[in-house]
Amino acid sequence: MKCQVCRGPAIIDVRRHNANFCQEHFLRLCRDQTKKAIDEFSMLEPDDRVLVAVSGGKDSLAVWDILGQLGFAADGFYVGLGIGEYSDESRGYAERFATERGLTLHVDDLLRDHGFDVPNGSRAAKRAPCSACGLSKRHLFDEAARRGGYDAIVTGHNLDDEAAVLMGNVLHWQTDYLGRQSPHLPAANGFPKKVKPLVRLTERDTAAYCLLRGIDYLVDECPMSVGNKHLSYKAALNDIEIDSPGAKHAFFFGFLDRAADRFADGSGETARVTISPCTRCGAPSSNEICAFCRLTERATQAVPIEMGRTRRRAGSRR
Amino acid sequence: MKCQVCRGPAIIDVRRHNANFCQEHFLRLCRDQTKKAIDEFSMLEPDDRVLVAVSGGKDSLAVWDILGQLGFAADGFYVGLGIGEYSDESRGYAERFATERGLTLHVDDLLRDHGFDVPNGSRAAKRAPCSACGLSKRHLFDEAARRGGYDAIVTGHNLDDEAAVLMGNVLHWQTDYLGRQSPHLPAANGFPKKVKPLVRLTERDTAAYCLLRGIDYLVDECPMSVGNKHLSYKAALNDIEIDSPGAKHAFFFGFLDRAADRFADGSGETARVTISPCTRCGAPSSNEICAFCRLTERATQAVPIEMGRTRRRAGSRR
Repeated sequence: MKCQVCRGPAIIDVRRHNANFCQEHFLRLCRDQTKKAIDEFSMLEPDDRVLVAVSGGKDSLAVWDILGQLGFAADGFYVGLGIGEYSDESRGYAERFATERGLTLHVDDLLRDHGFDVPNGSRAAKRAPCSACGLSKRHLFDEAARRGGYDAIVTGHNLDDEAAVLMGNVLHWQTDYLGRQSPHLPAANGFPKKVKPLVRLTERDTAAYCLLRGIDYLVDECPMSVGNKHLSYKAALNDIEIDSPGAKHAFFFGFLDRAADRFADGSGETARVTISPCTRCGAPSSNEICAFCRLTERATQAVPIEMGRTRRRAGSRR
Repeated sequence: MKCQVCRGPAIIDVRRHNANFCQEHFLRLCRDQTKKAIDEFSMLEPDDRVLVAVSGGKDSLAVWDILGQLGFAADGFYVGLGIGEYSDESRGYAERFATERGLTLHVDDLLRDHGFDVPNGSRAAKRAPCSACGLSKRHLFDEAARRGGYDAIVTGHNLDDEAAVLMGNVLHWQTDYLGRQSPHLPAANGFPKKVKPLVRLTERDTAAYCLLRGIDYLVDECPMSVGNKHLSYKAALNDIEIDSPGAKHAFFFGFLDRAADRFADGSGETARVTISPCTRCGAPSSNEICAFCRLTERATQAVPIEMGRTRRRAGSRR
C-alpha cells in the first residue's frame, strides 16, 4: 500500500478518493480539503476573528487545530451542559488542548450561568434532551460571538454529520430545513455567520487526523444521544458507503449542486418573520421572548418531585 | 393481539399502521389500500382494459388478484427473459395462477421472439443485466399494450420498491428521474399509461396477502440481481423502518406531496425531445432507432467466444 502522493509506505486508505496516504500527505489532505471547503463556500475571510465551538471531541479539536495551521485567528468556546461525567471529561479535553497550545478557550456553564442542566432542564421543560441541548448551544454560541466581537462561529460538523442531517430532512421531506441546509449560513438579523469547514472530511478522517497529530480527545458519544435518529441515519449511510464508496459525498454535495436551490424559495412551512431583540436577554428573536429564555423559564421553574414527574409553579407555561 | 377492526384474534401486525388484523380484515386492508392508491392518483377508470405485467412473484400476482376483486378487467402479460431455471419456474407460477382462475395470460419470450436472452444479450451488449432486462421489459410491455388495445399497464411495484428507487434517485440527486417518479405515469407520445396500485403496501404485506389467499408464487429473487444497488437501498430503508415504523411511507408519500413538483420543471439534464416512430419496429422513440432495437442489434450481433469476452462482427456498434 503506497502513498498516492510520494509512493512511500501508506498508513491509511481513503476509499472515497480511491487512494492511500502516508502520515504527512494524509495530514496535508485534511488541511487541503478543509481549505477547499472554506474557499468553495466562501466561509471565512483571512482576517476574520473566528470562534470555534469546542466539545472536546475529535471534530471540534481537529477543526481548531487545522484553522490554526491555515493561519486563522481562532479562539475556542466550550459550554458545560451538565451531562454528568461526560461533561466533566469533555471540558478537560478542551481545556488541555487549549492550554498545551497557548490558545484562548472561553467557558460557559449552563447550570452555573442559567440555572439548569440538559438532563434536568429538558425533562422539566418536556423537551427531548438533544433538542434542548442544541437550542442552548446555538443560543450560547451566538451570544458568545456577539459578546466577543467574533465574525464567525465554526463548528466541527463533518461529512457524516451533514449527510445524516440531510438524510433525516429528506426522509421527512422537511422542505424548510432543506432550504437552509448549507455549510455556510451567512450572518443575518444580528446572528453571526456559521460555517462548517470539515464538510469534506469524514468521521474516520478526523479521528485519524487527531491520532496522527497527537490530539487527545473524548472518544465516547454523548450518553444522552442513545436512540437519537441521526445515529440510525448515519448507520444506514455507512452501510450504503460500504457498497458504494463516495456515496455520502455524492449525496451531500450533489444536493448542494443540484437540489438545494429548489427548496430555497421560501415556500416552505415557515414564512419569513420579523426579528427583534428578545425582551429578556436582547438576543435577536422572532418572538417577544426568545426560545432559549422560554426554555430557561420552563427548565428552572419546575421542581422535580419524583422520577419522571414534575410539579409546576402557578403561572408556569406548559 | 386483537384485530383492530373486529377485536377477534389477530394474525398479523402492521407496525406502520400501529395495528393488528385478523385474516379477513388484513385482506380487506390490502384491497382498501390498493383502491385508495388507485383513487388518490387517478390510476384507472372503471372500464379501463388493464394489462398486468406478471413475473410470477408475489407482487404481480397479488395486484392481479386484487384488481379482479375490485372489478377491473385485467389480463396478464409475461416475458420470458431466459434467466435459466429462474425464468422457467417464474413462468410456471404465472401460468398456473392464470389457468386456475380462468384468466388470460399473454406470453412473450425474448430469445424466441428477439433472438437474445438477458444473460447473454446483456453481456454481448456490454450492459448491466438489470439495465438490459428493464429496458426490454418496458419495451415489450408497451408493445403488448398497444397490440392488444389496453388502456393501462399495471405493475406490482410496492412501497419498498418505490422507496428504494426514490432513495437511489435522492442519493445521486438524479433530478430528471425525481421529476418523473410517480405511481401514475400518464399516457403520452404513443406510450400507454403505467400505474402502480400497490404503492401503499409493503413487500411483507404482499407476501402475507399471497399466503392468506393461497396464491403460490416464486419466492426466489432473480439470481442476476445480486449486487444490484437497489437491494442495498432496500436494506438501508429496512433498518431505518425498524427504528421508525412508517419511515418508508413518510419518505415516499412526503416526496410526492412536498418535493416532486420541485423537480418537475424540465430543467434537469434531459431536455424535452421529439418522439417519432422507430424506423425498425415502429415504437415511439426519441431516436431514429429505439433503445430496444439498438439493444437487440448489439445483443444478437456479438458472438461469445469465451467467458466474459465477445467478438463483434464488422460494423457492429460499440
